[in-house]
Amino acid sequence: MNEDKKNSAEAPGLARRRFINTAALTGLTLGVAACSDKKSGDGAAPAAGASAAAAQHSAAANPSHLKPGELDSYYGLWSGGHTGDVRVLGLPSGREILRIPCFNPDALVGWGITNESKKVMGTKADGSLRYTVADTHHVHASYKDGNYDGRYAWVNDKINSRIARIRLDYFICDKITELPNVQGFHGIFPDKADPVDPKINYTTRVFCGGEFAIPLPNTGTEDGSKYRSLFSCVDAETMDVRWQVLIDGNCDLVATSYDGKLAATNQYNTEMGAKYEDMMSAERDACLFFNVARIEAAVKAGKFKTYGDSKVPVVDGTRDANKDPKTALTAYVSVPKNPHGVNASPDAKYFICAGKLSPTATVIELAKVLDYFEGKLEAPDKAIVAEVELGLGPLHTAFDGRGNAYTTLFLDSQVVKWNVDAAIKFHGGDKSAKYVVDRIDVQYQPGHLNASQSETRAADGKYLAVGCKFSKDRFLPVGPLHPENEQMIDISGDKMVLMADHPVRGEPHDFIIFKRDLLKPKQVYTLDEFPLAVKDPKDSGVERNGKKVTVRLTSLAPAFSMREFKLKRGDEVTLILTNLDKVEDLTHGFAIPKYNVNFIVNPQETASVSFVADKPGVFWCYCTHFCHALHLEMRTRMIVE
Amino acid sequence: MNEDKKNSAEAPGLARRRFINTAALTGLTLGVAACSDKKSGDGAAPAAGASAAAAQHSAAANPSHLKPGELDSYYGLWSGGHTGDVRVLGLPSGREILRIPCFNPDALVGWGITNESKKVMGTKADGSLRYTVADTHHVHASYKDGNYDGRYAWVNDKINSRIARIRLDYFICDKITELPNVQGFHGIFPDKADPVDPKINYTTRVFCGGEFAIPLPNTGTEDGSKYRSLFSCVDAETMDVRWQVLIDGNCDLVATSYDGKLAATNQYNTEMGAKYEDMMSAERDACLFFNVARIEAAVKAGKFKTYGDSKVPVVDGTRDANKDPKTALTAYVSVPKNPHGVNASPDAKYFICAGKLSPTATVIELAKVLDYFEGKLEAPDKAIVAEVELGLGPLHTAFDGRGNAYTTLFLDSQVVKWNVDAAIKFHGGDKSAKYVVDRIDVQYQPGHLNASQSETRAADGKYLAVGCKFSKDRFLPVGPLHPENEQMIDISGDKMVLMADHPVRGEPHDFIIFKRDLLKPKQVYTLDEFPLAVKDPKDSGVERNGKKVTVRLTSLAPAFSMREFKLKRGDEVTLILTNLDKVEDLTHGFAIPKYNVNFIVNPQETASVSFVADKPGVFWCYCTHFCHALHLEMRTRMIVE
Repeated sequence: MNEDKKNSAEAPGLARRRFINTAALTGLTLGVAACSDKKSGDGAAPAAGASAAAAQHSAAANPSHLKPGELDSYYGLWSGGHTGDVRVLGLPSGREILRIPCFNPDALVGWGITNESKKVMGTKADGSLRYTVADTHHVHASYKDGNYDGRYAWVNDKINSRIARIRLDYFICDKITELPNVQGFHGIFPDKADPVDPKINYTTRVFCGGEFAIPLPNTGTEDGSKYRSLFSCVDAETMDVRWQVLIDGNCDLVATSYDGKLAATNQYNTEMGAKYEDMMSAERDACLFFNVARIEAAVKAGKFKTYGDSKVPVVDGTRDANKDPKTALTAYVSVPKNPHGVNASPDAKYFICAGKLSPTATVIELAKVLDYFEGKLEAPDKAIVAEVELGLGPLHTAFDGRGNAYTTLFLDSQVVKWNVDAAIKFHGGDKSAKYVVDRIDVQYQPGHLNASQSETRAADGKYLAVGCKFSKDRFLPVGPLHPENEQMIDISGDKMVLMADHPVRGEPHDFIIFKRDLLKPKQVYTLDEFPLAVKDPKDSGVERNGKKVTVRLTSLAPAFSMREFKLKRGDEVTLILTNLDKVEDLTHGFAIPKYNVNFIVNPQETASVSFVADKPGVFWCYCTHFCHALHLEMRTRMIVE
Repeated sequence: MNEDKKNSAEAPGLARRRFINTAALTGLTLGVAACSDKKSGDGAAPAAGASAAAAQHSAAANPSHLKPGELDSYYGLWSGGHTGDVRVLGLPSGREILRIPCFNPDALVGWGITNESKKVMGTKADGSLRYTVADTHHVHASYKDGNYDGRYAWVNDKINSRIARIRLDYFICDKITELPNVQGFHGIFPDKADPVDPKINYTTRVFCGGEFAIPLPNTGTEDGSKYRSLFSCVDAETMDVRWQVLIDGNCDLVATSYDGKLAATNQYNTEMGAKYEDMMSAERDACLFFNVARIEAAVKAGKFKTYGDSKVPVVDGTRDANKDPKTALTAYVSVPKNPHGVNASPDAKYFICAGKLSPTATVIELAKVLDYFEGKLEAPDKAIVAEVELGLGPLHTAFDGRGNAYTTLFLDSQVVKWNVDAAIKFHGGDKSAKYVVDRIDVQYQPGHLNASQSETRAADGKYLAVGCKFSKDRFLPVGPLHPENEQMIDISGDKMVLMADHPVRGEPHDFIIFKRDLLKPKQVYTLDEFPLAVKDPKDSGVERNGKKVTVRLTSLAPAFSMREFKLKRGDEVTLILTNLDKVEDLTHGFAIPKYNVNFIVNPQETASVSFVADKPGVFWCYCTHFCHALHLEMRTRMIVE
């Protein structure tokens, strides 16, 4: 229980490298100490940190420094971690322009307060929210022809195994699905094409990795050897779970091939251990590939089970059941120790796994994996075309579309730029191949990174964002909870150049960056999107049906359509508010003091709330979202008799 | 009901000036049209917008563009609007470094989830939170010798009439008080000294303005002429409500004098109207002064009432009861139409009210107000030493410590810089006095503004932040909900220079800006601050007392002290977690899947949660806050039998 005593004895205010040693390496001696004394491999030049200070933008030319009024050229979609939301950033400035509430209530917009949002979020029998905590990690968007098509994005909730969909026209969450028999849903990735029908060159499925093995169904047995994880496929349109795959080991992150044939998840716990020492006992774990067409054929053929109350078909993807490559649904490619990341290169050829507890990245050629499934390759591991040393704690990889990969080194607090073809040559025996192109120090302990358009065929190699987990001394001190540090790096030249530090509220994990012209957001709703819309102020009023009361209201700056309305104590009230203002950016709020009601209505939006009028008195309902010079005076009086 | 039809007929994408006409002026024709055709007063040169384009920083010299790793020189404390929090910004960069949850749950830290935070927030009899919505507007900090002393900040919740206190050592909310018999608590300001005891040269009171008049007690009567507002005084240390004042009209914002003798609130609804047309019917409203020493003497002498269940003494501050200046508790100084703002100048001489529906600012000399209370001035209005025209929709005023004031013009979308002494001269008859020094266009519709150290005796005139309510075209489009635009302006020279646009999630209202060396935050807790602390991993375990179960856990990266623990279905569990890591920035999270539990523990912090173990099964509790290379592997297994 006190194996980490040396850590707790450290004083705060450590120098950068010592900080890494204590905070990041503590307890890692078993796994990484062997690596930390190693020299870089022959191909691994230049030395760490050599270029970091050398290359710098002059202040005037720093692309992250926009002039007032200048627009960003890229959107970024950032997961919000345990705030349960998705954040929209403008890049290269790194400015946060929106938070999209998904899994957790959001008091600004009334997410979790309005009936419409509660329906999306899910409620208990008594009408209260089922969950108010979440943990979002990975956000990815829908594809067409290998690039983003601006329809949807999806994000996971690891705590409660939910997947949320975001409409990218209005930037709102419109559906949430809870995955059955899954605990610790972590990685997520949409497919990019159908594996069978070439006409379907766009996203129709979203794959979801289950990280924690549990009893199936979850009966509470103590015997961990009976626990299993599932890999899930969710329908992109209906958001129903189509099928699941029973696997050996666990799922972490997910990647998909551009041809739609393959999905994969890296596995850090092939040992199926319950304690971290067991989870890191094997020298190699795996990247597990799924043959999507075969899985769907098996489901169609009825070759599946179900677990517990769930009706979702579960096919068998365990090693024992998939020994014959010609019928196998899955293929386990071994990769070094506790990998944390699998990423698809934009040339559609490779998946790359980073080793985390091994200083290596493994390059797996997808054509060879398909060969394996056709019986043309003797073993899944023969699909490995490179396994090269990069530095300590490699996690995630991004791409520039010019053949280079960028991998975060968590323990080294660096990003390493390396050339994939050179790495393959080096691995093939050409020791003169210099695959490491550049290194840059980052501040500190980077997790995910992503480059502009990296996970598309249109990777353009302009900007790289790096999610640093620790910011330590990079911002003014604000008490014990530090912000994280999203750093922006210019990767358009040979050398990486650090542009800016950007503090963010913990804890974004993953994110995507894409050109602004790929989205055409709508800035005003249409009344017809809302069945309850009060389309004319004349339709305002109080309708009574016994104790059930419906209040219909409209807003037009600076007034609500009714200046007062009366209720009786004990009334079961549904209040519907339509914002009839049509001007972009003209949002109203509606708060009822002491009734725990506040929500906003954007231009031409309708929202409703339900409550019991259990407190008598006069309640000044007021506009909470600044709208007009007479905003302060914009009220309606609710009188509960 | 449809008086604003011309607004709803407008198409989006309006040019800047037309936008102002539609969004801001609609419905204002009664009140402002008369002004909008007026020429600027003689003293009001130069013309609007003249300097906006002229003065610009070269990109290289822009102070808001920090180099990576460079620290800001000022802190900003920003209210979060209906997110119910306080935000901490670094300035001049405008970067948000922290959000401090106060009135609303915050899923990142577990605010509203942990027992400790629920105790601060307030719960119903069933243990659920009393409120989950709020509306914070004004944040102000404690003073000593006329400058911030780094102890506390306070923020209001307008919806539910609560005041929260923030400890500025740990940047956490530690107390919340609900004001009795107040609805729409809006303005807030700490005192700066005691009115009687000169040794008390620091904040001991916080004054709170009640905006909405209600029946006292709130019985639900329809007759608005019976409604009244209260002005409240809260004890800065105990956070108890000391006393309240019954007034005529309403309270909006609050200011306090440097000598502790006076507090004031601007009143936009002296008409006590229920509809906006009534609220704006009078040509003059008021700035209402409170004689703090006399009020406290009256309370001591037992000259008060109480209302309803509240035990708080309420003295009578209405006009009729305070006709004799020598005994008056209050003085009503008239100011033009619907003022929205009262600010104290750093030379301690003046309060300035801006007119909102009048294009003027009114300068009130505090020495003269004290003269009035001593019977030396024939009427409160004789304390007005200037009332000058500034532009359309003046709201709030900041100061540079060099005799200049900066006022936001909501309708003109400008900030106007004007000289107070020159304004007094102009008002006194010297028409050659040019009081307007400069104007700058802002984007768009500014509400509050504040300058560095503006509300202290140490006003330093370096930076000005302006909270623009509409951002419209200044950032990439993100659907119907636009960010607001906090603009940063350099005011160190004669001309104001716009440095940067900074998008913020709606809706910060007010904020303060002060030098970073005024705060000495702590970044690691001490175990002794927490009575429940599990100080040694050896003290971990499950203690059972019938169905009441206490689980004690510690965290030390990368493991929890117990790798598993067992419960019985139906157990009433309290789980206590102490983070024994001592390294700055090494925070852990603790999530229980499906149990709606997630919270963080910062270094050396203890937190607890209570829940009923009503779902059987295996639940992998995991660390949700990135801590270590083996963070993913950091789990404990909760088995509910």
